[in-house]
Amino acid sequence: MALNVYLSGEIHTDWREQIVTGAEGLDVTFSGPVTDHAASDDCGVAILGEEPNKYWHDHKGAKVNAIRTRLGIEKADVVVVRFGEKYKQWNAAFDAGYASALGKSLIVLSMPEHQHALKEVHAAALATAEEPEQVVQILRYVLNGSLPG
Amino acid sequence: MALNVYLSGEIHTDWREQIVTGAEGLDVTFSGPVTDHAASDDCGVAILGEEPNKYWHDHKGAKVNAIRTRLGIEKADVVVVRFGEKYKQWNAAFDAGYASALGKSLIVLSMPEHQHALKEVHAAALATAEEPEQVVQILRYVLNGSLPG
Amino acid sequence: MALNVYLSGEIHTDWREQIVTGAEGLDVTFSGPVTDHAASDDCGVAILGEEPNKYWHDHKGAKVNAIRTRLGIEKADVVVVRFGEKYKQWNAAFDAGYASALGKSLIVLSMPEHQHALKEVHAAALATAEEPEQVVQILRYVLNGSLPG
Amino acid sequence: MALNVYLSGEIHTDWREQIVTGAEGLDVTFSGPVTDHAASDDCGVAILGEEPNKYWHDHKGAKVNAIRTRLGIEKADVVVVRFGEKYKQWNAAFDAGYASALGKSLIVLSMPEHQHALKEVHAAALATAEEPEQVVQILRYVLNGSLPG
Amino acid sequence: MALNVYLSGEIHTDWREQIVTGAEGLDVTFSGPVTDHAASDDCGVAILGEEPNKYWHDHKGAKVNAIRTRLGIEKADVVVVRFGEKYKQWNAAFDAGYASALGKSLIVLSMPEHQHALKEVHAAALATAEEPEQVVQILRYVLNGSLPG
Amino acid sequence: MALNVYLSGEIHTDWREQIVTGAEGLDVTFSGPVTDHAASDDCGVAILGEEPNKYWHDHKGAKVNAIRTRLGIEKADVVVVRFGEKYKQWNAAFDAGYASALGKSLIVLSMPEHQHALKEVHAAALATAEEPEQVVQILRYVLNGSLPG
Amino acid sequence: MALNVYLSGEIHTDWREQIVTGAEGLDVTFSGPVTDHAASDDCGVAILGEEPNKYWHDHKGAKVNAIRTRLGIEKADVVVVRFGEKYKQWNAAFDAGYASALGKSLIVLSMPEHQHALKEVHAAALATAEEPEQVVQILRYVLNGSLPG
Amino acid sequence: MALNVYLSGEIHTDWREQIVTGAEGLDVTFSGPVTDHAASDDCGVAILGEEPNKYWHDHKGAKVNAIRTRLGIEKADVVVVRFGEKYKQWNAAFDAGYASALGKSLIVLSMPEHQHALKEVHAAALATAEEPEQVVQILRYVLNGSLPG
Repeated sequence: MALNVYLSGEIHTDWREQIVTGAEGLDVTFSGPVTDHAASDDCGVAILGEEPNKYWHDHKGAKVNAIRTRLGIEKADVVVVRFGEKYKQWNAAFDAGYASALGKSLIVLSMPEHQHALKEVHAAALATAEEPEQVVQILRYVLNGSLPG
Repeated sequence: MALNVYLSGEIHTDWREQIVTGAEGLDVTFSGPVTDHAASDDCGVAILGEEPNKYWHDHKGAKVNAIRTRLGIEKADVVVVRFGEKYKQWNAAFDAGYASALGKSLIVLSMPEHQHALKEVHAAALATAEEPEQVVQILRYVLNGSLPG
Repeated sequence: MALNVYLSGEIHTDWREQIVTGAEGLDVTFSGPVTDHAASDDCGVAILGEEPNKYWHDHKGAKVNAIRTRLGIEKADVVVVRFGEKYKQWNAAFDAGYASALGKSLIVLSMPEHQHALKEVHAAALATAEEPEQVVQILRYVLNGSLPG
Repeated sequence: MALNVYLSGEIHTDWREQIVTGAEGLDVTFSGPVTDHAASDDCGVAILGEEPNKYWHDHKGAKVNAIRTRLGIEKADVVVVRFGEKYKQWNAAFDAGYASALGKSLIVLSMPEHQHALKEVHAAALATAEEPEQVVQILRYVLNGSLPG
Repeated sequence: MALNVYLSGEIHTDWREQIVTGAEGLDVTFSGPVTDHAASDDCGVAILGEEPNKYWHDHKGAKVNAIRTRLGIEKADVVVVRFGEKYKQWNAAFDAGYASALGKSLIVLSMPEHQHALKEVHAAALATAEEPEQVVQILRYVLNGSLPG
Repeated sequence: MALNVYLSGEIHTDWREQIVTGAEGLDVTFSGPVTDHAASDDCGVAILGEEPNKYWHDHKGAKVNAIRTRLGIEKADVVVVRFGEKYKQWNAAFDAGYASALGKSLIVLSMPEHQHALKEVHAAALATAEEPEQVVQILRYVLNGSLPG
Repeated sequence: MALNVYLSGEIHTDWREQIVTGAEGLDVTFSGPVTDHAASDDCGVAILGEEPNKYWHDHKGAKVNAIRTRLGIEKADVVVVRFGEKYKQWNAAFDAGYASALGKSLIVLSMPEHQHALKEVHAAALATAEEPEQVVQILRYVLNGSLPG
Repeated sequence: MALNVYLSGEIHTDWREQIVTGAEGLDVTFSGPVTDHAASDDCGVAILGEEPNKYWHDHKGAKVNAIRTRLGIEKADVVVVRFGEKYKQWNAAFDAGYASALGKSLIVLSMPEHQHALKEVHAAALATAEEPEQVVQILRYVLNGSLPG
């Protein structure tokens, strides 16, 4: 058994690296969004031409990014969505809903203080973790049946 | 042609009433979540038994609510998602993602200050409006072909 | 909003009647298997001809019953599966799995002593209840937003 | 032609090993649940934190296991479900229903004394066998067209 | 519960009328192909223009008929396919395969002398009957739970 | 049997009226795009706000129109696509491709001089007609089995 | 581009070998049913136990064969169905209907004298050929764009 | 992450070569229609026999081509549709609609003078480009996150 895992959400900490490093040796292929914030914001106009209006600037970029994010989610067996400390993070919740409607196994990585606000997202998940290491442990268990400790 | 419209998101203002009232006479059937905040929070434990742990209190409730919200979205032709001024509103974004993955026509009702944070959600929508009256105008146009003014 | 509810599982107590009676006045349409045990066992051979071998006797009947049960589950919005005190009840668990794979909202009605044996089925459900009255309360809440008491 | 085969159900005898060994040389990839009973029961709390309530202890574990079992069934071409001598085995019947709704080819491995109780499950299967060796013979025939003896 | 039943196959005897008459009083809606043989053969050229080549004459007609037959099968809950005494009847077997792939409940109405030739079709069916009255009895049982006699 | 028929394509002649009038008395429900050319072009900006850039002016309108056109096609049993004398008519061909991928019965209404340019569209259709009256005849035949003349 | 091609139907001539040999060098993977007539007829009872009744003898075998044939068709990009000179060949027509409902590209290999009887099957096909060599030419053209001669 | 990209539409300029060459080194597999105009027009009759009527000549060819084009689109992650200067190009718009209904990421390559005529197609696309190099830049960004310049 091999797993395709999509890592969605927060892009300001190294949680993706922690999971990828922790999962070394497991038969997992990771994907995720472009995490270079500036590139992600400007990809639409950089390639397809400037837009004076910020709405369309963002719109063009969000659509180009959607080529990658939708594909990543659709090809994933497991979607991990991380909610960080700051920002609205509506794209993370959007991805969680998108993944859920496609029947993907959803793992949410979130902080205790967000528990109530995330209750609908948690209810759609197969696991709610607080630390990246827990995600690694889940992936290892799912693939090999081995538990930590 | 008749439309099933699901009204998702913010529950603290009367935007749903404005749309329902504005759409009187149109062949539209509206649905939406339970908007009584206390009932929505406590439905799980009120029916299925108390939980000392807040996580499971919320979990039970979120799952009972999911019976209604998933069904409403799945039966809808058009899903309107309203992002209000306050709170995390991750359930609104989750619903938008869920609706989008099911191929529903998505209309987002949002405020200009949230434009950048909502760019991925807007990119998945067929219309981005700021006022409930605009949603009514869209529904009227879609059904009858008539424009305002 | 109207609900199609399929009532699967145990056929030796009056739990279906309790739910149907309790839900009077709600916009719910109920369906379920043929609950006449003898008819259900013998329908295949009674219509399509005797079988000396018990396996084929049962097989013919199970297939005729499947016309009704599959259709009922496929048309349902909510599938309630009741596990009673006695027997193997594998058809109940089969229906739960079938409903789950189709994305139906699953409510399990079970007894505390079966909790561990049903953990995989419970994990796929949106609610785990012990009494038919709780199912009625869920249906009422889902349709009207009103809680008991 | 290659086959993905998921081996669901009873975990207390060596029937999986018999099939895997018997199928050596055939183009078959096997998968199945975690068969370490203790690990399977405790995986949820071992990774995601203790739960004083046995229901949630089991719930957390069943959901983590579901990441593996659902994926295994969804990727399978053939699902073999074994019903053993003891226990309720509702998860086995659940998997059979789940596989059936997804249109998987279902092979049931069961004992004559369970024939009547399994009639609905048998009716959904393409083969009902009593011995692991028969499953191997089916796989060999399906792949190579060769019959035993 | 109501049933949509599509009656496919042989058009030279009154088996459809027998079933429709026998099912009077049951909540069943019947559909089927155009059974006027000449109209069915010539509909394409009668409406869309003559074809000197018999292949295209037939092709045009078969496609116009497909508008009706595909729709009828897709909307059906139960598809009854009757194999009569004469002719190749490949369209009947084609309909059976088409219905089977869509997951419809298939009932085959056939003669004992065709048993071996129809074994693949029978294997995909939930019931194999010889007389139209048996189909009526199945429909009555599926809807009402009542058996003949 | 009843039919939902979507009438896509050319909006400058009265072909839709001819079909609707011709089909009076048949159990057909017709839908189609907004055929008021000015309203169709301007609906986006009229409701959602002006755009100085023609691309976004058109984009907003096309998306609002898509709410209606996608829904109409998705709910249709039969999609009729009319290619007229003038203009690029790429939206008509787009609708034909969209309908075809959804498995809808496609009827093309086109002129002989466009035969070669439409060969891929014709190849996906179940009928190619030149006159609206022929479409009426097909609908009548599909519903009633009666041929013209 | 690579093609999975399923070769269904007649098993008494060497048409499969002609196609496989003719397609050497093309990126095609072929599959098909078990073509050993005796093995195909007896596989059910040989593996799963004797049946005194011919119907169940055939039934068991047809279901075991269905594991292979359904899988082969579901994994195929192109399904070729050959109708030979003799026999009812309802399984061939059944496969054609099954493949058609799954949206597979269907190529029919048939004889001129069967043209009228096969008109519904031909109408669902993307090509009607008389000789295996024509099927090879189609596969070569689809993969490489090169035509014969 | 790897991408399957289908290049649909105009066949008279070297835009496909520009994209394929520009994307060298990226993990992209390209497919597309047969671009030899004469072969594409005549493939049906060259393989399956002459047709005196131009409609059927074209029909046979369009269906053989459909084996390749439908498969290419269905297997693609991204579908690029190029609208050139001349001709009706209804097959390009048909492919865009077909890809859109399947949920493929659509990139349109078109000229400014066609903007209004393509507004419905653009509205379904995730990017609208004018130059092949922009398509290459999108593919590179989607795969590697790197922007031009």
